[in-house]
Amino acid sequence: MKIAVAQLNFHVGNFESNTKKIIKCIAEAKTQQVDLIVFSELAICGYPPRDFLEFDDFVEKCMASIHEVAKVSEGISVIVGGPSKNDTGKGKSLFNSAFVITNQKIEKVIHKTLLPTYDVFDEYRYFEPNRSFDVVRVAGKKVGVAICEDLWNVGDNPLYTKTPAIELKNKGAELIVNISASPFSYNQDFERKKVLGENTNKTGLPIVYCNNVGAQTELIFDGGSFFMNADGTVASQEEFFKEGILVSDFDGSSFEKESVKTGSKIELIHDAIVLGIQDYFKKLNFQKAIVGLSGGIDSAVTFALAARALGSENVFGVLMPSQFSSEHSIADAKKLAENIRAPFEVIPIEDIYHAYEGKLHPMFKDLPFGLAEENLQARTRGVLLMAISNKFGHIVLNTSNKSEAAVGYGTLYGDMCGGLSVLGDVYKTEVFDLARFINKYAEVIPENTIIKPPSAELRPDQKDSDSLPDYMVLDKVLFEYIENRRGPRELVKMGVDENLVKRVLKMVNVNEYKRYQTPPILRVSPKAFGMGRRLPIVAKYLA
Amino acid sequence: MKIAVAQLNFHVGNFESNTKKIIKCIAEAKTQQVDLIVFSELAICGYPPRDFLEFDDFVEKCMASIHEVAKVSEGISVIVGGPSKNDTGKGKSLFNSAFVITNQKIEKVIHKTLLPTYDVFDEYRYFEPNRSFDVVRVAGKKVGVAICEDLWNVGDNPLYTKTPAIELKNKGAELIVNISASPFSYNQDFERKKVLGENTNKTGLPIVYCNNVGAQTELIFDGGSFFMNADGTVASQEEFFKEGILVSDFDGSSFEKESVKTGSKIELIHDAIVLGIQDYFKKLNFQKAIVGLSGGIDSAVTFALAARALGSENVFGVLMPSQFSSEHSIADAKKLAENIRAPFEVIPIEDIYHAYEGKLHPMFKDLPFGLAEENLQARTRGVLLMAISNKFGHIVLNTSNKSEAAVGYGTLYGDMCGGLSVLGDVYKTEVFDLARFINKYAEVIPENTIIKPPSAELRPDQKDSDSLPDYMVLDKVLFEYIENRRGPRELVKMGVDENLVKRVLKMVNVNEYKRYQTPPILRVSPKAFGMGRRLPIVAKYLA
Repeated sequence: MKIAVAQLNFHVGNFESNTKKIIKCIAEAKTQQVDLIVFSELAICGYPPRDFLEFDDFVEKCMASIHEVAKVSEGISVIVGGPSKNDTGKGKSLFNSAFVITNQKIEKVIHKTLLPTYDVFDEYRYFEPNRSFDVVRVAGKKVGVAICEDLWNVGDNPLYTKTPAIELKNKGAELIVNISASPFSYNQDFERKKVLGENTNKTGLPIVYCNNVGAQTELIFDGGSFFMNADGTVASQEEFFKEGILVSDFDGSSFEKESVKTGSKIELIHDAIVLGIQDYFKKLNFQKAIVGLSGGIDSAVTFALAARALGSENVFGVLMPSQFSSEHSIADAKKLAENIRAPFEVIPIEDIYHAYEGKLHPMFKDLPFGLAEENLQARTRGVLLMAISNKFGHIVLNTSNKSEAAVGYGTLYGDMCGGLSVLGDVYKTEVFDLARFINKYAEVIPENTIIKPPSAELRPDQKDSDSLPDYMVLDKVLFEYIENRRGPRELVKMGVDENLVKRVLKMVNVNEYKRYQTPPILRVSPKAFGMGRRLPIVAKYLA
Repeated sequence: MKIAVAQLNFHVGNFESNTKKIIKCIAEAKTQQVDLIVFSELAICGYPPRDFLEFDDFVEKCMASIHEVAKVSEGISVIVGGPSKNDTGKGKSLFNSAFVITNQKIEKVIHKTLLPTYDVFDEYRYFEPNRSFDVVRVAGKKVGVAICEDLWNVGDNPLYTKTPAIELKNKGAELIVNISASPFSYNQDFERKKVLGENTNKTGLPIVYCNNVGAQTELIFDGGSFFMNADGTVASQEEFFKEGILVSDFDGSSFEKESVKTGSKIELIHDAIVLGIQDYFKKLNFQKAIVGLSGGIDSAVTFALAARALGSENVFGVLMPSQFSSEHSIADAKKLAENIRAPFEVIPIEDIYHAYEGKLHPMFKDLPFGLAEENLQARTRGVLLMAISNKFGHIVLNTSNKSEAAVGYGTLYGDMCGGLSVLGDVYKTEVFDLARFINKYAEVIPENTIIKPPSAELRPDQKDSDSLPDYMVLDKVLFEYIENRRGPRELVKMGVDENLVKRVLKMVNVNEYKRYQTPPILRVSPKAFGMGRRLPIVAKYLA
């Protein structure tokens, strides 16, 4: 039995393009005498469709596309994800389903049992869970179909009471097919192989794992689909971050052994972000990005990643020095643009700053230079970037990192502006790792940008360390608080100074209002700011 | 049996203040010989606590507060909402619970059965549903305790399979107590009385309905708690939008008849927004607001509402005329500030605009005046408002209305800036109704502001109607698409021109990226932009 896993990059709501892709893959699979071709979760509409699912018109378009796919499936079996209507009159109005099609006929519609409703997932908002199990016969084999999270309980996940793999095994399944839309984070491939290995361990059944690839705004899907044998070893694996069809012969008990992919944490993050930028532009039909270059490391890494994603000719750097910008900042930023061979422009902001100052003077009188004046510079830069963006149709890329976003070290509508945040889920210490990774074979990011002490340069001789703890310390506390959700007492118990804990947690909590208005952030960690972390603004907790 | 309903304004995470309020009310209830006092859903921590519930420290602080409340409950019964730990090892780690305390002892912890997971609600993200029912004895009566949504199924709500009121009746309940955190929308009081009336109809049991009051960022809780007799009539009702203790004698079958509240749609919206502004400032510990005044109706209504919420002396108007501002705009804005007796300042932006123009000229060359230049003016105003905000610690109030937010008729970081959106859930046609309502007894908003054709005044002789359909038509289409989720075919069937439908829906969908970065919007309708409407940015559906 020949099985193909189609790892494709879908576009939410773009039925025409999604259906065309699926149909093209089916045709190709037929030329390779494939018996069964598998597409990812909610492939037909793209994942996540979010509240579009509340529109009947949207759901009807999904069904129409499924029927188009069915039409071309003579002589082959197809498993494809899409929403289906819950006609029982009980519960949510939809199921998250796998359509099993053979010879132009929808043989079975199998629904997702375990509906993740945590972090970035809202599935219980839309879907009713499946409660009964059955297998489906494909090319003479009994196949158990599971949808993504369905395999994330092997009896030990307290969130769930059902264990789909075991239910399917009990129904006589000889093989499990899992269709997924499992978003990337730097440890996700490891986690997936671990939990699917536990499934094979419990059931003795091999698994066909088909994942989505491509980015939808903040969520990046890394692909890495694979065939897993009953002993928990991965027989073969599709590339990460790329579309492709992976084909394997299943001899009834195991898959052919081929190569398996891996990547270092920083390499995976790098590739994920590059794809995240690419898809944001491609799916919104934009070509060019504009980045404000300060000579600092965040804007440099953002610019370099954008150049890799879009091509050097499609990124445009703007240096906007003020009276507080140091000579080396301008030199470093220029050097970066030259290294990348990207166009850049210098727009000094001093005159505009003075124009503001003049108009505000009647109100500000002789009040000392302070935060208002610092932010004014950052916002003047934001306005310039947005003006160029509006004039030429470029998208501004935001350059804030996760450490800054966490503690509110940034100016709303200033350096926090942009269509997409490239590094908003990358801690400052990891930004340095990314810079080194980018420079692996040649200097892209000027060495001086990497070694000099970070500074916002919004007043004379300013350093980040004037107002923030050392990033090595800060990032550790932030990671424990944000990713691991440790409270103040636990952090102190871990050896962090009590006053530092108080200070950092307060900074994080009182700056929720800033993060609320931040651009969408490419998610690369298990806990990113944005839809995966939902906190109140007016709260008074650790604040 | 004397029952008190404590309708209080809690603050998320402010355990000290919440607990103090509860304890004070218990003391007062005792002086009135009350047998049972009832507090709202999740009163102990404030509603909605959102992802703070994922922190053990937060949940432990809730339990510590419950124990403090228990300590002062000698000689009285107390029902109070709070999260409780799910120790079964199965499902989500928390319950959304009602603690029933008598004579300093926690007699029973009753969990919420029906967990709303739609619109602004994410309860299944945190809570495990209750599956068993029992009554609790208070002052000799068998009381059935239900939590908010628990009474929103009387057997006919397809979302749910359980009907808590009937289960409690079957367990012998003589009275139902419902503790709620039911957010305001202009039809919510009507809906509540309707569905609770259906509960009494099915069970023959009277209901004590305790609602939360006060705003938490975008969610406004209107209170309006009541005692409902078994025949479905409301015996007495607490004020809307105010804290208070409502006491009633329950003779075993019915409550004393007193007054019942109502309000017109526009009056309710007005009062809700005033409370929304008040609480945003109070809970963040700010006093003063700043509003950019254009002479147009949106900024005028925002300014008037802010003055009612915070006091005239605490709102500050800034007029920022450009070369395109008409004489009447400046005059109208001045008149408004004078009517309100609020301080204002005039800052012409032309010089700053020219400073930008000069710096951008080398890039823009002789490209014609367009969107970039229009947005530049709006953003210059945004920067000025934010500079004043930073200098004096005022919060900028956003003035965008729902129609503009829907179609993207606004400038990101320009007129879309601010800490809180006051009118973002009020359609333009409703803004006019609000203006008339505000002017009911005296001219607050200048008549000319109300009668002149809306204009952004970002280029010569600009009118909103140049780029948008007439607001009467636009708002109708938006309402059907957003509130009623009707798709394109349904809209055409309703008689809307097909091209208009296409044009409007496309404007709504392609502008999701702008709304993503919008300030939180005070919710007054059943479907507001923000957490209640979650759509993808890079989608290609009706776009």
